[in-house]
Amino acid sequence: MRARDLTAPFPTVTLDASVHEAAKLLAEQKLPGLIVLDQRGRPLSILPGTQVLRLAVPAYCQDDPALARVVDEAHADRFLRSLTGRTVRDALPEQPRELPITDPGATVLEMAALMARTHSPLVAVVEDGRLIGAVTLQALMDWAVAD
Amino acid sequence: MRARDLTAPFPTVTLDASVHEAAKLLAEQKLPGLIVLDQRGRPLSILPGTQVLRLAVPAYCQDDPALARVVDEAHADRFLRSLTGRTVRDALPEQPRELPITDPGATVLEMAALMARTHSPLVAVVEDGRLIGAVTLQALMDWAVAD
Repeated sequence: MRARDLTAPFPTVTLDASVHEAAKLLAEQKLPGLIVLDQRGRPLSILPGTQVLRLAVPAYCQDDPALARVVDEAHADRFLRSLTGRTVRDALPEQPRELPITDPGATVLEMAALMARTHSPLVAVVEDGRLIGAVTLQALMDWAVAD
Repeated sequence: MRARDLTAPFPTVTLDASVHEAAKLLAEQKLPGLIVLDQRGRPLSILPGTQVLRLAVPAYCQDDPALARVVDEAHADRFLRSLTGRTVRDALPEQPRELPITDPGATVLEMAALMARTHSPLVAVVEDGRLIGAVTLQALMDWAVAD
């Protein structure tokens, strides 16, 4: 089994998409994450769902549970719903060391190790610099436990 | 909006469950992760799907893409399907510094920050030492983008 056998089309967003639009896509299509393309249509970043959520969390709350705790319910609600206005470009986190991107020839073991290492429930599959789709954790798991 | 309003029942596994059984539960119920309970029924660990996948990856491949690359297709397939036999107890990774566990009074902002920090698409909700369910990233996102 190789990446090409498990690759399926996957929606993408551009840097100019609004964060709200990106979050809506994730929620409505129940995606495990998002693939962000650059101007030339190549994957620039892969954001696991948890990191899309991070875009809504003010910097001072991100790493300090005590600070998130003191924000009252009404303000907390507002933060999480205030995704409008900003674009993916504004909100993109610092590039991690390794992106979950692979080629169609990758084995299931390579993809599993890549997902585990990058904490990403999806891997973008790229051939000749072009995105051909993604392999999700769900697809890999379905295959692994199939009788 | 508080954790209690978004909490839903969530399947759990025990330390004595086989890894295969745990992976099957994850795949078949399309869960974002697993909650592992101790003997007293309290959450001992929360494993995001990517970390369940890690259980199938041999140690020498986990952090070195080059080593995963040299394993041929047949062996790679076998590794990922060789989850049988081992129990969750055998396979449990080292405990991370922070577990995605919260209380029913947590705000959406606290939960979002916790998921982002722990890279976990689910948060276990505990009251008086007892697991009452979980809030998933999907549930939080659905609420955040609802009109």
